[in-house]
Amino acid sequence: MFQLKRGRKPQLLTRSALAISLACGAFTGSAMADEIVHDAEYYILEAQHGKKWAADDKKMDAKLAEFRKKNNGKSPNILYVLVDDLSFGEMGIPELNYIRGSKTPNINKFADESLSFMRMYTEPSCTPSRVAMMTGRHPVRNGLGEVKATVAGEALAASEVTIAEVLSEAGYNTVHIGKWHMGDIAEGYPHNQGFDYASFPIHQQVLLGFMTPEADQSHAMQGWHADSGNDQFALDDQFKPGGLVYGIEGRKGEMAREVDFTAGEEWTQKHYDAMNEKYQRQTIEQLQRLAKDDKPFFLQYWPMIPLDFDRSSFDSFETSNGGTGVESLRILDGWFGEIMAEVNRLGLAENTLVVLMADNGRFRQFDNILGFSQMIYRGGKVDTSEGAVRVNAFARWPGMIEADKLAGDMIHITDLYTTFANIGNATKYIPTDRVIDGLDQTTLFLDGEGNGRRDYAFIYSGNTLRSIVKQKYKLELPAPGQPGVSAKIYDLQRDPGEESPMTEIALWASASYQDMTQRHLMQMKKYPNAPVGKDRPYSGIENLRPESKKMVEAFMSWSEQE
Amino acid sequence: MFQLKRGRKPQLLTRSALAISLACGAFTGSAMADEIVHDAEYYILEAQHGKKWAADDKKMDAKLAEFRKKNNGKSPNILYVLVDDLSFGEMGIPELNYIRGSKTPNINKFADESLSFMRMYTEPSCTPSRVAMMTGRHPVRNGLGEVKATVAGEALAASEVTIAEVLSEAGYNTVHIGKWHMGDIAEGYPHNQGFDYASFPIHQQVLLGFMTPEADQSHAMQGWHADSGNDQFALDDQFKPGGLVYGIEGRKGEMAREVDFTAGEEWTQKHYDAMNEKYQRQTIEQLQRLAKDDKPFFLQYWPMIPLDFDRSSFDSFETSNGGTGVESLRILDGWFGEIMAEVNRLGLAENTLVVLMADNGRFRQFDNILGFSQMIYRGGKVDTSEGAVRVNAFARWPGMIEADKLAGDMIHITDLYTTFANIGNATKYIPTDRVIDGLDQTTLFLDGEGNGRRDYAFIYSGNTLRSIVKQKYKLELPAPGQPGVSAKIYDLQRDPGEESPMTEIALWASASYQDMTQRHLMQMKKYPNAPVGKDRPYSGIENLRPESKKMVEAFMSWSEQE
Repeated sequence: MFQLKRGRKPQLLTRSALAISLACGAFTGSAMADEIVHDAEYYILEAQHGKKWAADDKKMDAKLAEFRKKNNGKSPNILYVLVDDLSFGEMGIPELNYIRGSKTPNINKFADESLSFMRMYTEPSCTPSRVAMMTGRHPVRNGLGEVKATVAGEALAASEVTIAEVLSEAGYNTVHIGKWHMGDIAEGYPHNQGFDYASFPIHQQVLLGFMTPEADQSHAMQGWHADSGNDQFALDDQFKPGGLVYGIEGRKGEMAREVDFTAGEEWTQKHYDAMNEKYQRQTIEQLQRLAKDDKPFFLQYWPMIPLDFDRSSFDSFETSNGGTGVESLRILDGWFGEIMAEVNRLGLAENTLVVLMADNGRFRQFDNILGFSQMIYRGGKVDTSEGAVRVNAFARWPGMIEADKLAGDMIHITDLYTTFANIGNATKYIPTDRVIDGLDQTTLFLDGEGNGRRDYAFIYSGNTLRSIVKQKYKLELPAPGQPGVSAKIYDLQRDPGEESPMTEIALWASASYQDMTQRHLMQMKKYPNAPVGKDRPYSGIENLRPESKKMVEAFMSWSEQE
Repeated sequence: MFQLKRGRKPQLLTRSALAISLACGAFTGSAMADEIVHDAEYYILEAQHGKKWAADDKKMDAKLAEFRKKNNGKSPNILYVLVDDLSFGEMGIPELNYIRGSKTPNINKFADESLSFMRMYTEPSCTPSRVAMMTGRHPVRNGLGEVKATVAGEALAASEVTIAEVLSEAGYNTVHIGKWHMGDIAEGYPHNQGFDYASFPIHQQVLLGFMTPEADQSHAMQGWHADSGNDQFALDDQFKPGGLVYGIEGRKGEMAREVDFTAGEEWTQKHYDAMNEKYQRQTIEQLQRLAKDDKPFFLQYWPMIPLDFDRSSFDSFETSNGGTGVESLRILDGWFGEIMAEVNRLGLAENTLVVLMADNGRFRQFDNILGFSQMIYRGGKVDTSEGAVRVNAFARWPGMIEADKLAGDMIHITDLYTTFANIGNATKYIPTDRVIDGLDQTTLFLDGEGNGRRDYAFIYSGNTLRSIVKQKYKLELPAPGQPGVSAKIYDLQRDPGEESPMTEIALWASASYQDMTQRHLMQMKKYPNAPVGKDRPYSGIENLRPESKKMVEAFMSWSEQE
């Protein structure tokens, strides 16, 4: 961690104290019970731009009120599509399709109809990004900076207030379809976190698309399948996970049920393919159902492809790249096209905000299978490079968001929480007793480029702060135990690959970054991080298979849960 | 070099022999006196696609004849703008402007009006690319694979037939403005190579923008300026070049004159700035003059910026990147906008083909000054990576080329020679006694994507073949003396950064690449490379300054010239 010891760098503390006292009014104000509490950095900016922002807020309120008036008093529907593991440049920019040998014509068309965010930051991997979006908070604040691949007995805590809960309070119908990946206990399931209905796998794609006999056969996976080798000296048959729960469905207030899978059955690529197709079908069905209702809807579709590791599940390869991820992205692009066609066919275009984005960068360890690689930014999922946390993101809302525009403003996935809440007239349901990292970016959405409220992002890896982006610069913190002077600072425009840390920037920027870090940690001390939810794995599922029960028993025999 | 020894790899020779006999009819046909001779690889493709191409050629002939009929019997004007040292992605793609913190709005607009070539290959540095465009031949064929930075006593030979000569024969007015960089002797000057008029510096920007007192002052240059250090033990005052000739102008059949510089004067950044501005102004003036003439024109403008190394020459920095190259690109973009506005104002839009492209990738050794860096492709100028030889290229011709389209077909800078000749109804003036590497890509220009005639490119570094691109694969030849098995093959779509050579491809592609190499070398043996032009440096200039004469004398005292 960055060095911030008192006494050793008194001049820096003085600078920090000054900066914070500058923002002091706002800082104190934030403690009022009815105001959202943001991270310290926000107040530094608010002190400089607050007057303009307050005026803009009024303008946005008026715009949204006018919209509701025209829309029978209803807030707009929100359709949120979150694509897995796709680095910036892989969708929405036709020229880059040629570089990659990929095809995303429907998403490119959608980009032309949308505001494209050029600097959308996420968390560096699936669970943290999804938690950030659902809670408006960095997952370090609720113990979900990282999650185990198989059973964990952990999940998004009931005490967190999700965007689905916030929008439900404001009268939205809420549905979640597809990947969830926020833990394997009841309190974390989407239908217990504000969604009226949810259809989802508890786990992620490694367990669904990799831990299959086909993946072993095609060299994508090794060692997992029972037939893939016979080690006579292996004594522990629980080391290879078995008895996993796959797809479940649930309704608010009810137990979940595992679906489409029976006791003793073996999970295969065919199951994974069928699951993907089902979520696509369910999304269309839900759109049709929700469109008829009097209430506005919040529908989120989080597909699992383009993560697909098995070549045998493709009839033919239509991209010249030919990687399973690139090919699967082409299929997803077609699916997304179907969804948008359905949105338009159902007459939802003008009263539905559609946001499409990726959750984090590419799963780079499988480049040779998936067909992706570094495009512009170095790195990918799990590290904290721009390749991990910069993604394509698009927002379409005909009549409210100007089409075919780009915005260079910074935005963070947590901002969707606050922005969706504001657009859904639900800001008053956001909790005010904790830090909300998300900022209200309604003005950026509706008035476009130059109206962003963020020029910073904190990047955690697991529960450790590892990088800080401010304006066009990025600080990579030293590894734990390394001295502060080994921090690296990059100019992201001159060096998007983060290859050459620049001493010439560090000479002035180190002190400013230290101030930022200190303010961030001070706020975290004032509003301590909350614990993760803990329980018996697979709690809240009424039809657990015998093999799943067995696995849970084994887990519980050594776990600290219960 | 790649191993092609007889006897050691007989099976490969057999494969080659087969492949060549397949294409044998075309190969023999190419020896006919009135047909253009291409490289062997072309005939392999012609054998597979010749019928369609012949039909397309007829269609193109009819299209062009129809155009001429509507255009008072005249062929179209051709305006060719060649930008220096700019890697793929730096212009014409708005999203990537945000990545770089750059601004190219006029070029982006031009791209929207154009066909954008997604796979334009060039030679890896300035002289070779310019020679390739002017002669339609890889510069290895005329001894210009590399050129010295200061005086060389060498140039493009008089025996080469440039596109300016070809178009002149067909009745074009021809003008060259800006960088030339094809040698420092009379026979190589543009006004002796087919241009009616030319205004240009003999040398390149290192001598013009770097060898200045300002560059020494700003750390961009070291050791060159007389005041930059005092080495009392240095005995040779000719080691630092002095007495260079800067800007010259000439008319066909006349001696050249050095302009805007007097004996004893010191070359400074101010001279460089003024020279850049003059070439821009002259381009506009020439456009206005040529527009009035009865004959069609071929005007090429080869600006020297965005190569600019001195911060003091900018009044302010308007890009967020702030590098001198990125800032200078913004200025060039404005200048290009002026030129296109003038083209439109003069009523030339519909009868002028405008092609804009870069000559090769970035000058990566000066990234920290210029503000560029790896965007998508690794490497830059001088190496043979995609970053060196892949550039943005755009062709606009309202009414004849469909606007706002992309083409994934491969095209090579030599193809402009043959394509411009065909569009200018001048193909019959292309020499048929030598290999022309350029292919006629008129169908690609006029009918767009899918109509290209090339799926290969040979990439030379200096006079050594170093890489071969075929389809989406790229072979990097082993360094001289290294065994053939150390050749690396990349999948350019899965690995645009050429970071991971793939054995899985080499297993089948090595043999095919060996065949290609052998065919290429066989054709070179049949049509041997021509010598470079040689003479006394600065010959053909009527007003050489005394210091220039002195430098020439010193050079001649040890040179083999004369």
